[in-house]
Amino acid sequence: MTQSFRIRLYQMDAVVGDFDANLQKIARAADQARADGISMLVVPELALTGYPPEDLLLRPALIDKLTAADLMLQEISRDLTLCVGAPSAAAAAISDWALGNNSARPASLLNSLLIYRNGEHILSYHKQSLPNYQVFDERRYFVAGTQSMVCDLDGLRVGLLVCEDVWVPDIVEATCRLGADLILVVNASPFAEGKFDERLDHLKHRASVNQVPIAYVNLVGGQDELIFDGGSLVVDRNGEIIAQATFFAEDRLDVVWDGQHLIGDRVEHTPSDDALLYQALVTGVRDYFSKTGFRKAVLGLSGGIDSALTLAVAVDALGADNVHAVMMPYLYTADISVTDAKRQAEILGCEFSIVPIEPMVREFMQTLAPFFDGHPVDTTEENLQSRCRGVLLMALSNKTGALVLTTGNKSEMAVGYATLYGDMAGGFAVLKDVWKTRVYDLARFVNRATEVIPERVIVRPPSAELAPGQEDSDSLPPYDRLDTMLSLYIESDVSPDEIIDAGFDPVEVKRMCRLVDINEYKRRQSAVGPRVTVRGFGRDRRYPIANRWSF
Amino acid sequence: MTQSFRIRLYQMDAVVGDFDANLQKIARAADQARADGISMLVVPELALTGYPPEDLLLRPALIDKLTAADLMLQEISRDLTLCVGAPSAAAAAISDWALGNNSARPASLLNSLLIYRNGEHILSYHKQSLPNYQVFDERRYFVAGTQSMVCDLDGLRVGLLVCEDVWVPDIVEATCRLGADLILVVNASPFAEGKFDERLDHLKHRASVNQVPIAYVNLVGGQDELIFDGGSLVVDRNGEIIAQATFFAEDRLDVVWDGQHLIGDRVEHTPSDDALLYQALVTGVRDYFSKTGFRKAVLGLSGGIDSALTLAVAVDALGADNVHAVMMPYLYTADISVTDAKRQAEILGCEFSIVPIEPMVREFMQTLAPFFDGHPVDTTEENLQSRCRGVLLMALSNKTGALVLTTGNKSEMAVGYATLYGDMAGGFAVLKDVWKTRVYDLARFVNRATEVIPERVIVRPPSAELAPGQEDSDSLPPYDRLDTMLSLYIESDVSPDEIIDAGFDPVEVKRMCRLVDINEYKRRQSAVGPRVTVRGFGRDRRYPIANRWSF
Repeated sequence: MTQSFRIRLYQMDAVVGDFDANLQKIARAADQARADGISMLVVPELALTGYPPEDLLLRPALIDKLTAADLMLQEISRDLTLCVGAPSAAAAAISDWALGNNSARPASLLNSLLIYRNGEHILSYHKQSLPNYQVFDERRYFVAGTQSMVCDLDGLRVGLLVCEDVWVPDIVEATCRLGADLILVVNASPFAEGKFDERLDHLKHRASVNQVPIAYVNLVGGQDELIFDGGSLVVDRNGEIIAQATFFAEDRLDVVWDGQHLIGDRVEHTPSDDALLYQALVTGVRDYFSKTGFRKAVLGLSGGIDSALTLAVAVDALGADNVHAVMMPYLYTADISVTDAKRQAEILGCEFSIVPIEPMVREFMQTLAPFFDGHPVDTTEENLQSRCRGVLLMALSNKTGALVLTTGNKSEMAVGYATLYGDMAGGFAVLKDVWKTRVYDLARFVNRATEVIPERVIVRPPSAELAPGQEDSDSLPPYDRLDTMLSLYIESDVSPDEIIDAGFDPVEVKRMCRLVDINEYKRRQSAVGPRVTVRGFGRDRRYPIANRWSF
Repeated sequence: MTQSFRIRLYQMDAVVGDFDANLQKIARAADQARADGISMLVVPELALTGYPPEDLLLRPALIDKLTAADLMLQEISRDLTLCVGAPSAAAAAISDWALGNNSARPASLLNSLLIYRNGEHILSYHKQSLPNYQVFDERRYFVAGTQSMVCDLDGLRVGLLVCEDVWVPDIVEATCRLGADLILVVNASPFAEGKFDERLDHLKHRASVNQVPIAYVNLVGGQDELIFDGGSLVVDRNGEIIAQATFFAEDRLDVVWDGQHLIGDRVEHTPSDDALLYQALVTGVRDYFSKTGFRKAVLGLSGGIDSALTLAVAVDALGADNVHAVMMPYLYTADISVTDAKRQAEILGCEFSIVPIEPMVREFMQTLAPFFDGHPVDTTEENLQSRCRGVLLMALSNKTGALVLTTGNKSEMAVGYATLYGDMAGGFAVLKDVWKTRVYDLARFVNRATEVIPERVIVRPPSAELAPGQEDSDSLPPYDRLDTMLSLYIESDVSPDEIIDAGFDPVEVKRMCRLVDINEYKRRQSAVGPRVTVRGFGRDRRYPIANRWSF
């Protein structure tokens, strides 16, 4: 082989279901690669369909689309080696018992890495380890490959893996035993806080244990609740990073095989934890809008920190011209809330309106008076205020085509400190998986250079302002304590007793864990929002609503 | 062995997560069985935990609960053979790569049939075929058993299977090759229209092919979106039914092994398709309320057929005293709608209120006037009416503790002919998986003996009454045509082109299928509701919201 074999990892944003657009993007990348003297172009896992395609994979029409795409990819691969993540049909895939029962059809596809070379489809590797935990449902759609594989390119032996495969020591070792000079792994690995470090540790370990370089190309971009962070990278046989791409943006990362080693020329900086999280949210909003065809957002700006951060994210994602912030005061809204909301909107330069809800709340209360007679005031009246706001925002959305962003955080989602059809009304829940303590961190991050969120919004005690003098601390423990216990309970499956053993107040722990359990019905009707932890409230956490588990 | 071995299939309703209650129920059944001279008592798949326990199975505290339950089941089994469906911990279950990464933990449990005899745990069979399609996620939680098993009870050789196993010819045959005299299969098989016939055909076939009697015990009762229909049954070696239990109620089905054959003494009648569907809905409502701790329901009664049927179901499920029907007229509400709503409430004897929404709608319109200026009237104004109704019902719910039932049907859910946070606001969506054409069938069924739903409600043209003179047919094809094409598209994955080829109008088919696709965001925020078809809109159908698939 030539001494200099140039490999390009194309960290690509693929749109779910959009075969044409994804193919065109791969074709353009191939043209550029040829122009740049690249020998091998690699795109991520399921780049053809986007990830996760979910039940689109059950459509029988998929097979024709895959066949057509295969022909196009052959054509695209002229004068190039092209490695593409795509589903492929399993031979004799449908077992006899399922014949004639389409809806009960078991998995009949493979999650493959297709290798094209100079106009020919020369090889297909099939993912062996199919994740079926967390947000992943791959065994719903795919059967597992059973064979490790090395692709020989004029003497360069490239070991082929798809995503989860590289996390399984046996699979990596089996591939190396086939004589791989380097390992190529295509991925659709979604962001979560701390995930990049975990990924990196793992790759370093697998590389050094097997004394093999690993080239890791990741998908990038938001898809519903998932945000792929990119951060593609290459480690040498000692596990040292020799090339690293950017995060949360498409990128091309080139490395050269000189006959003995992989050589990279660029290692992008890894942003801080706060920067990664903030970029994840911006990416989530930007891509949800672009991929669902929305351009404008409207949100309720209350003068509190959650909506303030949501507004900052929205403006960074969509541009100030596309964001409408609406302050909807009521009797319990403090003057400083209105002032601070207005100020932030001015700083950011977005449209701002003040729409008092008093007339609507009054009419509802009058109409409901005969039914409420004899009942004490309770959260019903608070929910009513919140729901009037929800109706207003949805009316603005319906009339103008702007999508409503909800502003609640993960701490509130967890314990149900939110009003269904009120502040939970909207299409995208920006902070759904962001703990309140992280909301504060991110507000500081937003203000790192200049005041975007008025300082008073950050320092004043949090309040829903739904009753006179109300503060969050009337109903909930301080957020640092709350978030710690909730994170243990929700993200690490630690039982209430064990949390209490760790030094927390028994009554408080039991009350909070119970709130988590009984508020499943609210979360089930919540808007989709970006998953940024190891366990979000979307596909990640599947809990029964009717549930009588007691610890 | 004794010539007369009495087997009791206990068609049980288990509550998800409620180990204590489920164990107590099994203990009481064991006491009764001993008193009745029963040799072997059988309870359904996962009767210990309820089905589906979903992510409760990921809680580490589960293992202690299973250990404690095992001791109790040993005790319960004195002077009896007791067969219990329950999870069990897999030995060496956690593979090395997942150690220390709890949230990524792969399946480490088995879905087992535990056999206890005279105070001892004598055998555990582990389900070999784990469904991971439709509503099922069993590979998220369980590893598959690999061994067929026969339990020898003083010479009677009982082949053991769990649910899906009996659908796999190879597994049934392997069990028979071990010399099974009869097959015992414990199930948690949810209802869908036509499912009982499918199940029956299958059991008959497996029995006659293998010349083995099969005893099939099913779970019963509603759990969130799933409704287990019971209908446990026993077929002889020729596939003839020799015993059959009731549907949608707990039951005990006894059969006797006389040394050569199974002999049953009772074959319950199989209700008509309409009766089964109606009972499924009643069961769904009744059990969702009882298992989540609700007693009372409130719903909007519009004078239309959907809410009329929902009211009938609610009254049958909860009793007239526990149901509050609220008519919320607006300018476009016909007088006959108010009259008919009132009449049905009188017939059924439930609480009825009339709450005009005009004052609230007016205030919203005045407040929104500056924003709506220059925009034409569109569905925004219609949604506003619907949302005022939603806010009213939710306020009544919050104040009185009654759960709001939503009234939309599957046809509307499919094409998005519903208002998010308006008529979609509520805790349980009774008709969510019932096509409009089936709504008509069920209304006739409800009226089979006496007029419960005023005849005019059934015969008048359907209308949402959100605009002057509005009828459903202004926006949608006639429901018989609509339901046929939607059912093909949604339940059978038939492509629009193939639907057109079947003789439907191309423009109409493409418009309707597109409506299905773009309304995923609404369904994602809809209330849970009983699944009664082979593909409901719950765990069954997992579609991306951001989705650019084009046919």
